[in-house]
Amino acid sequence: MQSEAELIDFIKNGYKTYFPQVTIDCVIFGYHDQQLKVLLARYPWINGWGLPGGFIKIEETLSQASVRILKERTSLDDIFLQQFHTFGDDEDRLAHWHLKYFPHDYKEMFGADNWLLKRTISIGYYALVEFSKVELTPDFFHDEFEWHNVTDLPELLFDHNEIIEKALATMRVQIYHQPIGYKLLADKFTLPEIHMLYETILNKKLDRRNFPNKLMALGILVKLEEKRKIGQHRAPFLYEFNKEKYEEALKKDVVIVF
Amino acid sequence: MQSEAELIDFIKNGYKTYFPQVTIDCVIFGYHDQQLKVLLARYPWINGWGLPGGFIKIEETLSQASVRILKERTSLDDIFLQQFHTFGDDEDRLAHWHLKYFPHDYKEMFGADNWLLKRTISIGYYALVEFSKVELTPDFFHDEFEWHNVTDLPELLFDHNEIIEKALATMRVQIYHQPIGYKLLADKFTLPEIHMLYETILNKKLDRRNFPNKLMALGILVKLEEKRKIGQHRAPFLYEFNKEKYEEALKKDVVIVF
Repeated sequence: MQSEAELIDFIKNGYKTYFPQVTIDCVIFGYHDQQLKVLLARYPWINGWGLPGGFIKIEETLSQASVRILKERTSLDDIFLQQFHTFGDDEDRLAHWHLKYFPHDYKEMFGADNWLLKRTISIGYYALVEFSKVELTPDFFHDEFEWHNVTDLPELLFDHNEIIEKALATMRVQIYHQPIGYKLLADKFTLPEIHMLYETILNKKLDRRNFPNKLMALGILVKLEEKRKIGQHRAPFLYEFNKEKYEEALKKDVVIVF
Repeated sequence: MQSEAELIDFIKNGYKTYFPQVTIDCVIFGYHDQQLKVLLARYPWINGWGLPGGFIKIEETLSQASVRILKERTSLDDIFLQQFHTFGDDEDRLAHWHLKYFPHDYKEMFGADNWLLKRTISIGYYALVEFSKVELTPDFFHDEFEWHNVTDLPELLFDHNEIIEKALATMRVQIYHQPIGYKLLADKFTLPEIHMLYETILNKKLDRRNFPNKLMALGILVKLEEKRKIGQHRAPFLYEFNKEKYEEALKKDVVIVF
């Protein structure tokens, strides 16, 4: 959606194209500068920040819709994307909650019966992306994007702070059962980098020696011959994941505890 | 809903009371005779078996709706109930899928625009109940109930077989992070009973000695003085969970691996 005419058409006629009263919100995590970050989008017509999201088309499955919405907003394709929770408990969500967020001129355009003014339920998906690969595509829904450290988020629109909290909590459980590590790191990384990533996600200190040893014993983590030069006297070895071993362990229900 | 008049009112006017095109389905697990069982309901007006479920009222949160639906169908209250996945990928769900399930006379009553004939999304909740405490309440939606072994299910209506599969897979992950054990067992149990429960849920063999030792080392499992007499020469000791220790371990992110 690139023009105001398209936006007005969406407001007036969107109900013919989209499933009513259900949205998808995407919590997109990236890891950069030893910080776990989440992608926020500015909603220009509401004048606030929230999660990138969208509506499901009538003929689309939920999976198709989540992949399309993520691709439209961030140009990302073929990434780790997982449904984690459906949100419909927030008080605001019950009381035609959108209304209070819209500026007056849109409200008049809407009319009291408009499809966008009804109570909505939102299906949350979280995505793990390699930070360097993201190319953002602003449009009329989201005219700016920013990465924020998950520990330092502003107050967001709707219940989006709560949605991010739940995504983080889910990831903290799923890190034991899903290939979360290799979705967030570059192909080759140093031990301090992976150590810091897991500490950040789990939000606790991990033993510096035990942590890599366990992953190496399972064959999941592999030391390379290659080093990365980061200073005159510092050139730590690089590591990579053995993705086959990683997937195999997960399939066998091996739970990796740190 | 007890009478056909109420059913007809629901078909004709339900859209005034309920959130459109979104349902809740409950996967209710109980443990009995060393088998993990799931509760199935007969849908008399469609003439098939499926999961107990219902619609969300317009003024209800999702949590309130799930508790109410479970209580209406099974008279169960204050139990472990957890949202696990929202279903909207099934091909049938896209194509006004309800229609093919209804007998002809209902179809005529509906009219082509009826609110019940549109594509629906279903939010899945799973519940863990102590088998002996369930009192079932048949009504016009579900006129019979049956417990089925999860490993031996008939072909169910809609995508309900898939929903049960996903609930089982979720429980297999969450057993490491949620107090699933003590929700399914009676207050006091023998070691073979809890051992069998975990083997059933995880669908794999667990070491007969290591398994209880780990739980006892964490203070989660407590041996009682009391015994249960099951034969002339057999009276195994009873055990119980220390629920405080159990909750504490879960809060601290202790992952219990067997």
